Amino acid sequence: MQERKNIGEKIYELACELFPINRSITGRGVRETLRIIQRELSDLQIHEVPSGTQCFDWSVPREWNICDAYIIGPDGKKIADFHENNLHVVGYSTPVDKTVSLSELKRHLYSIPEQPDAIPYVTSYYEERWGFCIEDKKKALLKKGEYKVYIDSTLKHGSLTYGEIIIPGNSEKEVFLSTYICHPSMANNEVSGPVVTTFLGKWLQSLRSRKYTYRIVFVPETIGSIAYISFNLGQLKKHVIAGFNVTCVGDERAYSYLPSRSGNTLADRVAIHVLNHISPDFKKYSYFNRGSDERQYCSPGVDLPVVSVMRSKYREYPEYHTSKDDLKFISPEGLSGGYNSLKQCLICLERNEILCMSNPCEPQLGRRNLYPTLGKKDMYNSLKIVMGLIGYCDGTKDLLEIAETTGLKMQDLFETVDKLKKEGILVKVDNDN
Amino acid sequence: MQERKNIGEKIYELACELFPINRSITGRGVRETLRIIQRELSDLQIHEVPSGTQCFDWSVPREWNICDAYIIGPDGKKIADFHENNLHVVGYSTPVDKTVSLSELKRHLYSIPEQPDAIPYVTSYYEERWGFCIEDKKKALLKKGEYKVYIDSTLKHGSLTYGEIIIPGNSEKEVFLSTYICHPSMANNEVSGPVVTTFLGKWLQSLRSRKYTYRIVFVPETIGSIAYISFNLGQLKKHVIAGFNVTCVGDERAYSYLPSRSGNTLADRVAIHVLNHISPDFKKYSYFNRGSDERQYCSPGVDLPVVSVMRSKYREYPEYHTSKDDLKFISPEGLSGGYNSLKQCLICLERNEILCMSNPCEPQLGRRNLYPTLGKKDMYNSLKIVMGLIGYCDGTKDLLEIAETTGLKMQDLFETVDKLKKEGILVKVDNDN
Amino acid sequence: MQERKNIGEKIYELACELFPINRSITGRGVRETLRIIQRELSDLQIHEVPSGTQCFDWSVPREWNICDAYIIGPDGKKIADFHENNLHVVGYSTPVDKTVSLSELKRHLYSIPEQPDAIPYVTSYYEERWGFCIEDKKKALLKKGEYKVYIDSTLKHGSLTYGEIIIPGNSEKEVFLSTYICHPSMANNEVSGPVVTTFLGKWLQSLRSRKYTYRIVFVPETIGSIAYISFNLGQLKKHVIAGFNVTCVGDERAYSYLPSRSGNTLADRVAIHVLNHISPDFKKYSYFNRGSDERQYCSPGVDLPVVSVMRSKYREYPEYHTSKDDLKFISPEGLSGGYNSLKQCLICLERNEILCMSNPCEPQLGRRNLYPTLGKKDMYNSLKIVMGLIGYCDGTKDLLEIAETTGLKMQDLFETVDKLKKEGILVKVDNDN
Repeated sequence: MQERKNIGEKIYELACELFPINRSITGRGVRETLRIIQRELSDLQIHEVPSGTQCFDWSVPREWNICDAYIIGPDGKKIADFHENNLHVVGYSTPVDKTVSLSELKRHLYSIPEQPDAIPYVTSYYEERWGFCIEDKKKALLKKGEYKVYIDSTLKHGSLTYGEIIIPGNSEKEVFLSTYICHPSMANNEVSGPVVTTFLGKWLQSLRSRKYTYRIVFVPETIGSIAYISFNLGQLKKHVIAGFNVTCVGDERAYSYLPSRSGNTLADRVAIHVLNHISPDFKKYSYFNRGSDERQYCSPGVDLPVVSVMRSKYREYPEYHTSKDDLKFISPEGLSGGYNSLKQCLICLERNEILCMSNPCEPQLGRRNLYPTLGKKDMYNSLKIVMGLIGYCDGTKDLLEIAETTGLKMQDLFETVDKLKKEGILVKVDNDN
Repeated sequence: MQERKNIGEKIYELACELFPINRSITGRGVRETLRIIQRELSDLQIHEVPSGTQCFDWSVPREWNICDAYIIGPDGKKIADFHENNLHVVGYSTPVDKTVSLSELKRHLYSIPEQPDAIPYVTSYYEERWGFCIEDKKKALLKKGEYKVYIDSTLKHGSLTYGEIIIPGNSEKEVFLSTYICHPSMANNEVSGPVVTTFLGKWLQSLRSRKYTYRIVFVPETIGSIAYISFNLGQLKKHVIAGFNVTCVGDERAYSYLPSRSGNTLADRVAIHVLNHISPDFKKYSYFNRGSDERQYCSPGVDLPVVSVMRSKYREYPEYHTSKDDLKFISPEGLSGGYNSLKQCLICLERNEILCMSNPCEPQLGRRNLYPTLGKKDMYNSLKIVMGLIGYCDGTKDLLEIAETTGLKMQDLFETVDKLKKEGILVKVDNDN
Repeated sequence: MQERKNIGEKIYELACELFPINRSITGRGVRETLRIIQRELSDLQIHEVPSGTQCFDWSVPREWNICDAYIIGPDGKKIADFHENNLHVVGYSTPVDKTVSLSELKRHLYSIPEQPDAIPYVTSYYEERWGFCIEDKKKALLKKGEYKVYIDSTLKHGSLTYGEIIIPGNSEKEVFLSTYICHPSMANNEVSGPVVTTFLGKWLQSLRSRKYTYRIVFVPETIGSIAYISFNLGQLKKHVIAGFNVTCVGDERAYSYLPSRSGNTLADRVAIHVLNHISPDFKKYSYFNRGSDERQYCSPGVDLPVVSVMRSKYREYPEYHTSKDDLKFISPEGLSGGYNSLKQCLICLERNEILCMSNPCEPQLGRRNLYPTLGKKDMYNSLKIVMGLIGYCDGTKDLLEIAETTGLKMQDLFETVDKLKKEGILVKVDNDN
């Protein structure tokens, strides 16, 4: 018997493959991650941006790579072994190989007293330091004595790496998807983003035709999106009609939405509509609660219509940025939900249009088999979609607004839209996207 | 001792006269109904539109008339006798005169299992068929055997009939009232509409002068309003500043409001204001819940400012479209409430205007006997209306908006408006209706 | 040990000095009050407007002065002695010196049955009459007999007196403060206004520089503000960007806000923001509940952006316009709260500006010591202000709007605004005030 994997299982499988890789904002982990994604999305272009490249107010940092890191305690046992969990070393740690006292060691140790079982995720990209992260309960047991600290890392001129794929559509107008690939082994706040985005890309490629062009990027967070914007600002501002920062789309606890800066773009409207129908009690954050690459995409002067449709938002679940955000925290069901909510957004964007009734008054729907020939008191329930469309298609409202106004699910309109267009009852208005 | 009837009793009396007539969208019942209304409103014009006349996407159907209809059961007893209740025959039934088995009969029988005592109202205007409507509990008792089915009807070239009256005012601008006359014996959802409209027309005719011209039509629903619009679209769009589809204005259960498509026309504002003061918990429906001739008047391309101010809305009470919507379901009190709410809307429209204070700062009201000469702490309560007017009449807000903003009842403003205009404190702004 | 008085105590001290003076809309009490205020604000100009001067629809009334007033009862005892409480005589009473019966006396006696211990405040500015105000419980005890009524007052050509001070700023644009000085001995609804305004003036004078010019007036209510507007309408409309009618700022029961007529001016926005942070449950009245000089400043044709930030609003506390609104009803704490809420409004106005990010994307804050160099999961809390500013300063929103949008307190932004301006990250947009 052949077992066919469902979409959630397939996405989870790719998450398991990407999870162990030690990523940072530069270095071999990013490249290895992008090569795996390239296997799934063969047209993915991999770009290298040399260290020192100026991007607006920023300079691309030196490239960081690491082979090994650990502490050896007074009893000769290894602690905080990088090969056991890559969160044990502070990101961008400079090399070190010396023996220190417990009190000096503690100045380089990071833990979370409130979460004694969790290894925190700590980085120091723009100031040179070295450090280790450990469970607070282990830190508490450390005895006085000499500790050997060893980090075999390099920080030197190299490049920042990112991936980009353009999936062409009938229009120059673009839908933009961005996700990040710069965190070591964490599942919801990292791996869920690139794997869901990869499968969205595969689905888009599989479509016979697309109205919009899709621009999908896999970038290191912050410096990667800033670099990408600095190279493409004009194109992005000219073409992007809606965008999604894909992050935290893997767990099952919640659905969440973070708006664009203006809060009322097409991307915002479609995200709210889709989430209202998937999970009416989804969490609505303010743009003030932002924390990922929408910080750049929506910044004044960039002003892209980019939102986040998420499961549990970064910073809002205790496992965030610790070793507890692992492959048990996400699931095939969680990933499938994240994937599906974004896919529904893209479908609604593709199908959104402004239509107008071709004649005054209602058309004679009965002779077109769109209205019962027998008038009875309960017939109206079956007519909601057709009555919604002929009532509100006035050449000023797009289908999304009509769905919002009537409370109908936008996806439920499409079949009847097609019939009414075929009958010449509804006609497309030119001036929409 | 002479008993004077109140307005509700007079309207109910006319309802009783119209109730028994067998109306449909064409035929003798419509004409008989219009002749009775013409007796009350002598200037009513009766128009005939020939079968086959093209009206936008529609064609006026053939004229249907019926003399008799019944079923005779195996026991020789009459069932579903048209002369007992005209709902027993499906509207627009083709003639039939034959004997059928019970099982064939049942394919032509309509009943409501959830309402076993009620005869449903069923029509088949645009597809030829014959049928009978009966109480479900009677249907359940029918025994096997031969049934004689007899319908003596005609469906042939003729005309569609409607009534129209124009009551002139000082302005070319019009207030539009439409009601329908196409249902057989049902009280709230049919007869209440034309009788209340008739008495509104009588009241309008009795006024010494009117600001607006009133256009009142009595049409068969859907095809009648479509035909009327097709003949008058330009006039309607040019002149109508507010309109009311008068339907379901006879029972005592509720007050209801159905907005125009845009929801914020003058008609909407006045309806909401009046109902807020008559019954603050009135039911607000969405335009998506429409179901009467506003489907045509508010349709894209027609775009008239037409709303419905109702008692219990069609489709929202169990008796709707059954034999239970009878003269016991409506009442003089219910009709009087429906009449009064619409009359108040018309009064507010007539008196609505944009006024402006003639000078900066408050006027000296005391010397005009509009303000107490003795200043005491509790004097302000008696000054609410004058303070509302002098505070908000700034040449941009009409009286309706001032009533809404202050929470005052618009009708309570008029006496003080007259005084302040007479004193030259308030002056009319030209650019309003 | 030296005791330094806090601001509330200083304001209360001045209130105690002004309280006993018998003020009316004209006369010696107004002049005496203004001379005391002039001692505190040496640049205060005192203006006299002759009786009979026409001000829009009004004429400045004759000047009223009073030396003595009392009733002597049948038992020879003094009742309603003006020297005991100046509320005992109806404001603008004409002179009288005669003997009347109890029943005639009662036609000239005012009391409040619901507040038997309180002397009401009654005036008759524009109709000649005489009268006395007494406690209702005393009125009830009056016995039949002859009563001597004596009022030694004059009502003759003179002038209306008001004070004005202009405190210059860098801009011609003005912030306007108005308060009134026309009530006899009442504390919250009168004295609190001029004393808080006096101390606001002293604070404004003490500033090294001011962005805005401050126009502060002390006027008799209604006729005084109408006269002032009639002389200065052009200047006021041209320059005033925000104004405050300072009244009822002395008790501790509540904070209240009364909007301008339009409700969305800069003054409204700043008042709401400040009160939201001082006392989130402050009372929001409608402009329809107005009752002080905003009746003139916000009237159609004047249209100034004037609001009231109050403690317990006039007409909304039982002691209002009675002898119970005395020095025990207000307090140093109450006055300090009233003073501080208005001062915070002025500070927010002074510091409000529209800023714009100088570059697309976030700046590199770390190297400017505005962002931690160590990335940890809990770091974001300390970054709210800087993230609020760099996220929302887009050249269209002023700082007040950014504070409202983010929920941050506007005053908490200023330090970071200064740092970001110094770093060139934020730049001022020219087209704001």
